[in-house]
Amino acid sequence: MARPRPRDLGIIFGAFEPGKHNAITDVPGVGVGHFTLVEGEGPLKVGKGPVRTGITVILPHGGNIFRKKVQAGCFVLNGFGKSAGLHQIRELGTIETPIALTNTLSVHRIADAMVGYACSASPEIGITTGTVNPVVGDINDGFLNDIQGRHLREEHLLAAIRDARENLAANSRAGKAPAAGLPPAEGNVGGGTGCSCLGFKGGIGTSSRKLPAGQGGWTIGVLAQTNFGGDLIIKGVPVGALLKRQSPGEPEAAFPLPDPPGSCMVVIATDAPLDARLLTRMARRGGLGMARTGFYSASGSGDFFIAFTTANPVPHDPECQDLRFPGATEGGPRSIPTSDAGESSSAQVSAESKAPLLLRREVLPDEAMSPLFAAQAEAIEEAIINSLFAAETMTGRDGNTRRALPIEKTLEILKRHAVL
Amino acid sequence: MARPRPRDLGIIFGAFEPGKHNAITDVPGVGVGHFTLVEGEGPLKVGKGPVRTGITVILPHGGNIFRKKVQAGCFVLNGFGKSAGLHQIRELGTIETPIALTNTLSVHRIADAMVGYACSASPEIGITTGTVNPVVGDINDGFLNDIQGRHLREEHLLAAIRDARENLAANSRAGKAPAAGLPPAEGNVGGGTGCSCLGFKGGIGTSSRKLPAGQGGWTIGVLAQTNFGGDLIIKGVPVGALLKRQSPGEPEAAFPLPDPPGSCMVVIATDAPLDARLLTRMARRGGLGMARTGFYSASGSGDFFIAFTTANPVPHDPECQDLRFPGATEGGPRSIPTSDAGESSSAQVSAESKAPLLLRREVLPDEAMSPLFAAQAEAIEEAIINSLFAAETMTGRDGNTRRALPIEKTLEILKRHAVL
Amino acid sequence: MARPRPRDLGIIFGAFEPGKHNAITDVPGVGVGHFTLVEGEGPLKVGKGPVRTGITVILPHGGNIFRKKVQAGCFVLNGFGKSAGLHQIRELGTIETPIALTNTLSVHRIADAMVGYACSASPEIGITTGTVNPVVGDINDGFLNDIQGRHLREEHLLAAIRDARENLAANSRAGKAPAAGLPPAEGNVGGGTGCSCLGFKGGIGTSSRKLPAGQGGWTIGVLAQTNFGGDLIIKGVPVGALLKRQSPGEPEAAFPLPDPPGSCMVVIATDAPLDARLLTRMARRGGLGMARTGFYSASGSGDFFIAFTTANPVPHDPECQDLRFPGATEGGPRSIPTSDAGESSSAQVSAESKAPLLLRREVLPDEAMSPLFAAQAEAIEEAIINSLFAAETMTGRDGNTRRALPIEKTLEILKRHAVL
Amino acid sequence: MARPRPRDLGIIFGAFEPGKHNAITDVPGVGVGHFTLVEGEGPLKVGKGPVRTGITVILPHGGNIFRKKVQAGCFVLNGFGKSAGLHQIRELGTIETPIALTNTLSVHRIADAMVGYACSASPEIGITTGTVNPVVGDINDGFLNDIQGRHLREEHLLAAIRDARENLAANSRAGKAPAAGLPPAEGNVGGGTGCSCLGFKGGIGTSSRKLPAGQGGWTIGVLAQTNFGGDLIIKGVPVGALLKRQSPGEPEAAFPLPDPPGSCMVVIATDAPLDARLLTRMARRGGLGMARTGFYSASGSGDFFIAFTTANPVPHDPECQDLRFPGATEGGPRSIPTSDAGESSSAQVSAESKAPLLLRREVLPDEAMSPLFAAQAEAIEEAIINSLFAAETMTGRDGNTRRALPIEKTLEILKRHAVL
Repeated sequence: MARPRPRDLGIIFGAFEPGKHNAITDVPGVGVGHFTLVEGEGPLKVGKGPVRTGITVILPHGGNIFRKKVQAGCFVLNGFGKSAGLHQIRELGTIETPIALTNTLSVHRIADAMVGYACSASPEIGITTGTVNPVVGDINDGFLNDIQGRHLREEHLLAAIRDARENLAANSRAGKAPAAGLPPAEGNVGGGTGCSCLGFKGGIGTSSRKLPAGQGGWTIGVLAQTNFGGDLIIKGVPVGALLKRQSPGEPEAAFPLPDPPGSCMVVIATDAPLDARLLTRMARRGGLGMARTGFYSASGSGDFFIAFTTANPVPHDPECQDLRFPGATEGGPRSIPTSDAGESSSAQVSAESKAPLLLRREVLPDEAMSPLFAAQAEAIEEAIINSLFAAETMTGRDGNTRRALPIEKTLEILKRHAVL
Repeated sequence: MARPRPRDLGIIFGAFEPGKHNAITDVPGVGVGHFTLVEGEGPLKVGKGPVRTGITVILPHGGNIFRKKVQAGCFVLNGFGKSAGLHQIRELGTIETPIALTNTLSVHRIADAMVGYACSASPEIGITTGTVNPVVGDINDGFLNDIQGRHLREEHLLAAIRDARENLAANSRAGKAPAAGLPPAEGNVGGGTGCSCLGFKGGIGTSSRKLPAGQGGWTIGVLAQTNFGGDLIIKGVPVGALLKRQSPGEPEAAFPLPDPPGSCMVVIATDAPLDARLLTRMARRGGLGMARTGFYSASGSGDFFIAFTTANPVPHDPECQDLRFPGATEGGPRSIPTSDAGESSSAQVSAESKAPLLLRREVLPDEAMSPLFAAQAEAIEEAIINSLFAAETMTGRDGNTRRALPIEKTLEILKRHAVL
Repeated sequence: MARPRPRDLGIIFGAFEPGKHNAITDVPGVGVGHFTLVEGEGPLKVGKGPVRTGITVILPHGGNIFRKKVQAGCFVLNGFGKSAGLHQIRELGTIETPIALTNTLSVHRIADAMVGYACSASPEIGITTGTVNPVVGDINDGFLNDIQGRHLREEHLLAAIRDARENLAANSRAGKAPAAGLPPAEGNVGGGTGCSCLGFKGGIGTSSRKLPAGQGGWTIGVLAQTNFGGDLIIKGVPVGALLKRQSPGEPEAAFPLPDPPGSCMVVIATDAPLDARLLTRMARRGGLGMARTGFYSASGSGDFFIAFTTANPVPHDPECQDLRFPGATEGGPRSIPTSDAGESSSAQVSAESKAPLLLRREVLPDEAMSPLFAAQAEAIEEAIINSLFAAETMTGRDGNTRRALPIEKTLEILKRHAVL
Repeated sequence: MARPRPRDLGIIFGAFEPGKHNAITDVPGVGVGHFTLVEGEGPLKVGKGPVRTGITVILPHGGNIFRKKVQAGCFVLNGFGKSAGLHQIRELGTIETPIALTNTLSVHRIADAMVGYACSASPEIGITTGTVNPVVGDINDGFLNDIQGRHLREEHLLAAIRDARENLAANSRAGKAPAAGLPPAEGNVGGGTGCSCLGFKGGIGTSSRKLPAGQGGWTIGVLAQTNFGGDLIIKGVPVGALLKRQSPGEPEAAFPLPDPPGSCMVVIATDAPLDARLLTRMARRGGLGMARTGFYSASGSGDFFIAFTTANPVPHDPECQDLRFPGATEGGPRSIPTSDAGESSSAQVSAESKAPLLLRREVLPDEAMSPLFAAQAEAIEEAIINSLFAAETMTGRDGNTRRALPIEKTLEILKRHAVL
């Protein structure tokens, strides 16, 4: 990536410190991978291309997610989208597959591919146990991409998952504890390949915050697939409007032009010990950080938020091998350490003969949530601006071109406004 | 109560066994009290009467509920009602006052009285800590009652709370464990005084189920304030329609007459270790048991469901005296036994210097919920029929009369249909 | 259908009259089609079979649904399911594709096929206009079917849609008004092929009600894909439990056996002039009729309800050809008759030069909804029992067998209980 | 008001033009009134004072709101609040009383007073027709106010309503069309009297936007009661943090201090022809404009949004006098002009003997909503900053002082950042 990240240029969002890589992968154990598909040029031939799309995968942990689910919440700010898997997140408060982000017309095909992936890893699905709920988010990249062609297939999902696993493993080899994955690439990669955002080229952006020890010391990481309309604001400066004034005709005005192609997917990860209700509280606030960038949730913008925690994972069933404590059947309450981080993120199961087993959890009280809410808003704002800084100009189908944010001009404007 | 309960006559609802008293108070520690206000006869004079109304109070436990909150969920099947307190239940997953059930136009006055009650018990409210969220449900008893007159006042709420405390204490004296309160009266008492239900006199009804040990052994208790329209069905027999055929003109036809005055409040209590999400799952199913009695949630029927558990209560703040473990400050994780029932329903708080304290909870896995759902449906069905069996004919304002369910004729019909 | 429908045997559910065919297709213009896939026998070989599955398609009308959307609402009683398309229904209040019902692991593949179908019919999707939201419901038929094999493909969806169109056309030839489609087959057809319900073979069931003229004269039709657990109740008689007592060991006990494979999809159609809010009110009540059959929404049962009206359809965009009134551009408000039924179900668009066009609608007041709610509950109850009467014993993968409801024994029981 | 409004100083929020007074009352027919209660000084004596509180009332129109309801939607971003009336708004999509904003512990008493007010105006409530749903919002002003004392009573609500009527009438005398009310005072008035916001004195703020004719020409007005935590941002400049740096110790740090007293109520009014679903879409976006001021929805902040339209009001019942067209009973569909603005904002009722009457409505298509969403975000941002500019330093109970935003220093900072 030649293009710099805003923070490296001195553009600081908010008051909390970012994690080591300022990325969702700063949450220990979380991995991200991309598969990017760019093929062809010229006029659109449906089914042939040009293709400008991809898949981004987020692994909540490096193990079998179906058997060791993570607690999760979600929120739909604008339901004009096709994302898969949210009903079950809302009902059961868990995620049981990797999270994939792709384009709107491919979301079903990739969800189907995720079913295949999950069945490979857990062949009992639908046979000796229940079914599986793939979680797939979507944006409309049809301005650049032959979206009707639905070019993404199962092998592409598997490639993105493999990439995520490798990024995760790279950092994990050294220590015993679940390591952070390599920070994901931003901009025109994976599900961000064909994105348009705030009149410029959008894409994947990521950021993180680490709370001070006195507020729990937890990490909040976010990853956004940015594809929404509005007039770009950076730290309060109406950069979008000012750039338009400089170069009339260029980047398209959000208004009063027709409703822009929309949607934004935001994934929020944390290691704070939250339950589904608290994670839903986080997801419901997802739009707040976005709003600081000029986002107003246009009618056509399907805006979905998914939040999960790596703390206190949930076994698919209490007999599940990979969560069982060695010697647990000997007697006494069976203790199920659910991660390498030890007791502080553990789930335990008590055994009373035939009675249902209980899950033991530690949960943050609601009063301690405010720093997480504030930190999340900052990280989401930064992730979106990061996506714009990273994404390069792209020409797609029918010669449609989405220009990159002109970084030098942007910096000039920010300097004039004393932001730098 | 001269009128018999259906179960005593051999009318059995469902497959699970009821608790000792077949009442919500079978859930250990739960108490119920009523205040009933019946005054005057003849033509309505707004503000004078006749009065046919009251308040029913449910205590989740016998202590200070603001300081030791109970986990809760709720569901609004039909929002055509004015109940207070549900937004905060949904957000925070807790209840922090007794639950009161009263009439629609008095709900705000009683909520205000509940604020006063809570401030007496916890004088720090609004001064050194936050505010308090009164939970009050409502039905429209205006057919019999001078509802505009809003005759219920603070002392009436206090009387109902006192009654609940006494019923709870009566059973608690003997043992150390939180005892069940005395079973509540049913029919024309408390918030059920002016109720109409399925064409007959409605009121308060209650029932409970105790799961087999192999399904956890927990108790589910329900209490309903029955005031909704429809044609009465008992165990599938269209008793309402058949009674109408026998005595034309009498009990009013539900259709095609104008929409009946509506609403039903159902409170579900359990000692199962559930969290807010699982309790919301229970509340969302509240209408299912009702439907078996002829309920269809008419447009004008505000149907609200509140579910709480006595397990794993939540301290108002982690320094809260009445939950602190003696010697907790000595070091190590502070353990907060939150009820007399011992560790199995305990909440614990870990202490890491200045970091936020964590609540420790045991939670039932989702797969173990089905017996609770099935048992709840039975108990709600029975509670509604119980209210009809208990409620006696009442004449109220303007000579309006709501006839009691004719028990003998009902039993004849049930015998003819081989139910008895 | 060799097996009789309950109503033909004298088993009457509720008080309202059914429509002509007692089917969802009694709603003028609505069509239903099935594709059934039954292949192989013996031990499960994933990807080979045995296959016991299918697709049921509901057409809200016979035209291009993307261009002429129908208003809709939905409700998720239990989100443990994977249905596609509901977020957008909730946000925009419209359905823009046929509704397909299939199995849980095929839902994404069929949603993808629906995208293909919609793009064929409206090639502008994703190119000059937005994307399309396929609506697909699901149940888990894995007890009988090689569900992991995901045997359903695009051509099967197209076959079901074709079947629906033909059924619709068959009745439409005669008159000008949108006719009712042929009544759909019930039982082991389409998405109902592999269903299990209340311990017996489930499947597709349908029913309808026609309100008296004084209540508007509208038709409410429902179609259910029945695959949920519980103990069968027919008109209050615990038929399931009584049959078990007669033949111990046979049909499996719902409790305390492990949680049954779950889910029920219910589609509600009407020609009443409702908007999305009112249709959501209908959907939210969907469980009430089900509850009368023994349904209690087990934890594993993903229970989803979709309601739509054929009245006041919504043009994809106001310039949309197939809705434009001839001569509309001449001046004055442009009137858009949206169905053959004439003005009473029309939408109109006013034209003020460049200002946004307005949609004109007639909407039923809330007070008039109660008869629809009551009628819907009856129709849903009947549709479920219909599915059980129609479905025949089926043996599927690994020799797993789901027995049909024994109709003779059932009738005996009902007679003993004076239901017949 | 001695203190200037930001816009008068050249601080412009967003791209759309405000209405005539940059106030919610720019929506024709909407009126606002305040009642402010400031009494006593010194140490808190519960029930005696000091008192720093009040009531703000918003009239959707100048007539009887129970009989001529307005369509409405609402959204709860953070349910940690006690607001009354939202369940019924969500279910029925209407508001039937004035909207009152007051303090958290008085919300029930004022809701009760609103019941009294409504019954005076419509004596049939609860007698010959249903009950009434008061809409009352709340914030916690306990830092300055003897909130436990609950000093607000029925006469204070009536005073606020009277004030709103007079403000509305003042402008209405001249013309026939429903005029805008006088613009409401901002800052320490009515429900804003005891507010704290973003570390400074908060209060009432209002703003409006008028869409260009090509986008419909509608007006969107907002009024906010600002009482939430966070670090103040004005047009992207972290004014709160910079002021703290200048004067250490003063205005209180939002973090890592204990959770600030919270809550924000926002009321959105428009004359655009929306229905309840579209108004809910507006309400759901209410937090976006707030976020630009530093708002992040702290855990303790009950954030509620109510949106209504003056277009297409809904008669309480179709026989309702004040909506009936003269001569309507003569035959043909009865036409009900519902406002002075004539047909474009009318509701019509068709009469078919005994069949339910239908309401006729014009509704904006979803695609036309984006300008409203964008305009609303700007207006909400400006209303909040307006409240801070208007509110003056206040000392309340126990000498607690909340300082006003120091306007000069703020302007210096904004100049240094080239905002001015």
